[in-house]
Amino acid sequence: MNGRVERLRALLEEPLLVSDPANVRYLSGLGSSNAALLVEEDRVRLFTDFRYAESARAIEGVEFVEAKRDLFQTLSELLSGRIGFEASSLTYERYARLHAGGIDAVARYGLVEGLRAVKDEGEIDTIRRAAEIASNAFQRFADEGDLVGETEGDLAWRMERFLHDGHADSVSFAVHVASGPNSAKPHSRPGDRRVEPGEILLVDAGCMVDGYCSDCTRTFATGRLPEELMRAYEICLDAQLAALDAVRPGASGPGVDAEARDRIEAAGYGEFFGHGLGHGVGLLVHEDPRLAQESRHTLAAGNVVTVEPGIYIPGLGGIRIEDLVVVRDGEPEILTTFTKDLLTVD
Amino acid sequence: MNGRVERLRALLEEPLLVSDPANVRYLSGLGSSNAALLVEEDRVRLFTDFRYAESARAIEGVEFVEAKRDLFQTLSELLSGRIGFEASSLTYERYARLHAGGIDAVARYGLVEGLRAVKDEGEIDTIRRAAEIASNAFQRFADEGDLVGETEGDLAWRMERFLHDGHADSVSFAVHVASGPNSAKPHSRPGDRRVEPGEILLVDAGCMVDGYCSDCTRTFATGRLPEELMRAYEICLDAQLAALDAVRPGASGPGVDAEARDRIEAAGYGEFFGHGLGHGVGLLVHEDPRLAQESRHTLAAGNVVTVEPGIYIPGLGGIRIEDLVVVRDGEPEILTTFTKDLLTVD
Repeated sequence: MNGRVERLRALLEEPLLVSDPANVRYLSGLGSSNAALLVEEDRVRLFTDFRYAESARAIEGVEFVEAKRDLFQTLSELLSGRIGFEASSLTYERYARLHAGGIDAVARYGLVEGLRAVKDEGEIDTIRRAAEIASNAFQRFADEGDLVGETEGDLAWRMERFLHDGHADSVSFAVHVASGPNSAKPHSRPGDRRVEPGEILLVDAGCMVDGYCSDCTRTFATGRLPEELMRAYEICLDAQLAALDAVRPGASGPGVDAEARDRIEAAGYGEFFGHGLGHGVGLLVHEDPRLAQESRHTLAAGNVVTVEPGIYIPGLGGIRIEDLVVVRDGEPEILTTFTKDLLTVD
Repeated sequence: MNGRVERLRALLEEPLLVSDPANVRYLSGLGSSNAALLVEEDRVRLFTDFRYAESARAIEGVEFVEAKRDLFQTLSELLSGRIGFEASSLTYERYARLHAGGIDAVARYGLVEGLRAVKDEGEIDTIRRAAEIASNAFQRFADEGDLVGETEGDLAWRMERFLHDGHADSVSFAVHVASGPNSAKPHSRPGDRRVEPGEILLVDAGCMVDGYCSDCTRTFATGRLPEELMRAYEICLDAQLAALDAVRPGASGPGVDAEARDRIEAAGYGEFFGHGLGHGVGLLVHEDPRLAQESRHTLAAGNVVTVEPGIYIPGLGGIRIEDLVVVRDGEPEILTTFTKDLLTVD
């Protein structure tokens, strides 16, 4: 814990008010929707309301200050001087209240997020457990079959149950199941459509363990697929493997993205891969670093990222293959171990 | 839909950029994490990226403008002049980008939220369906019993399954189950504690239907309770009924809160009721109006609010009884119909 605060302090030009809940949790261990840390040179104060008082008092190395339920009322009353704030998550209203309270509030960006992007081995162990639960749930989903005739919504629920049975604390996002032509829609929700034979079934699922997330996508066939989808699956898998090969410290976000994108474009499907290649995963299921054309990130050992190219052919079906991996010196460690062979399950 | 935009326009001094996802959904019907509406006197423009293009084009009365994935890049390039923004949800970073793009950005507060607080009968019908599913899930939970020896986490999962079986689209928040002394903790999470006989089991659950939420809490006994908890239950129920009686158009948030709080204080448990009496429910499970000591809201017909006093006795157990109700001229309509008698289920 203290190491994290020390690393943060080395980046600061003035005290930093940490108000983003994931950042507060990262630095203090406290999971609260109504807490903030003021990190100064010589001390760390933790402001939260009475509901979290017992937990807050037990945290070593921080001074607990009991705040009102209206946390920013307390902060604007008690604080003064030049203080950095987390501008990418703080609302304008809260900024304005700090400012009105006489604080010289300075917008700062991505300081704790940058630290969070590099996981320590303890964090990686936790994410590995979350990924194992997801991998086992995919295995059970494939083994049990009985997909054709079920609705997407019921299959999403089934997958959530498998994650629960694997002792996940919760899902890390609502399980996504899309069938047939729905799988080609970039933003459908699992609905009442019933799965038919001989089509795509795309499943995107992850879970949380001790605050950390996993994320995995696999694409199944519910029978013999049209040739174009068989071919697209091979192209997508080839692109995914090429991108995995490029995941190493020093690689750029756009560079790794291009390994997959170039292959998909060369096969003529460039317009059907309409999202970035991947994203960091940790306390949040979407965090830094980003693997995408517009990313400014460079990979470092200890990053945990998804690698998930997709090919979505309108009206026909969509394919996405997503692994969760740890950036290592040398080969990346792949945390999502369920097979990427195209399985036929009906 | 158009009536909502017209009512909003009547409140505006300048064009309003609506960026809060629930507000965008309320005004346009589009559910998107990356969309904004610019409401001007003579037109409404809907900015969103290609993933939502098909849905956005189908919306009547708005002009679709295809934006980049980086929505605020597009907004700061295309917009100019004096424009209001939603200061209680927009991040400082996004505000700063609008400002840097030359927009004279004016902080506005609660405009769409104020409209959303008064539901029309169509919205109430939808919330009623979500509340019925929750009431039925509580009934099944009580009927099936088999609580003692189970973990809180498994019982929370069981309740989620009952909501799913009732055809909810999803839960409206992670089901909360707290047993024994955990039920007195204001912010515990359902965990590995196994339910014992003769203690409290507190269950807080709700679900979503067509974008709208329900919310209901009941407190069970798993056998004969200590006298103090029996008495606290009666006091809490009496307070809840008194507050329900006070729910009517024109009543103030603090006034309704006081109906319950005064009774709990008179019984000597004032310090053990550490939260507000209730909150609005709609597209979000927590929205305006608030029933609390510090609330500035006045109830109006069509508000949908929770009424949920609690008494939490440290080390012993906590009680909360929560209904979801519609403010009507005359008696409120109670949407959560499951019994409030203290049921013994083991």
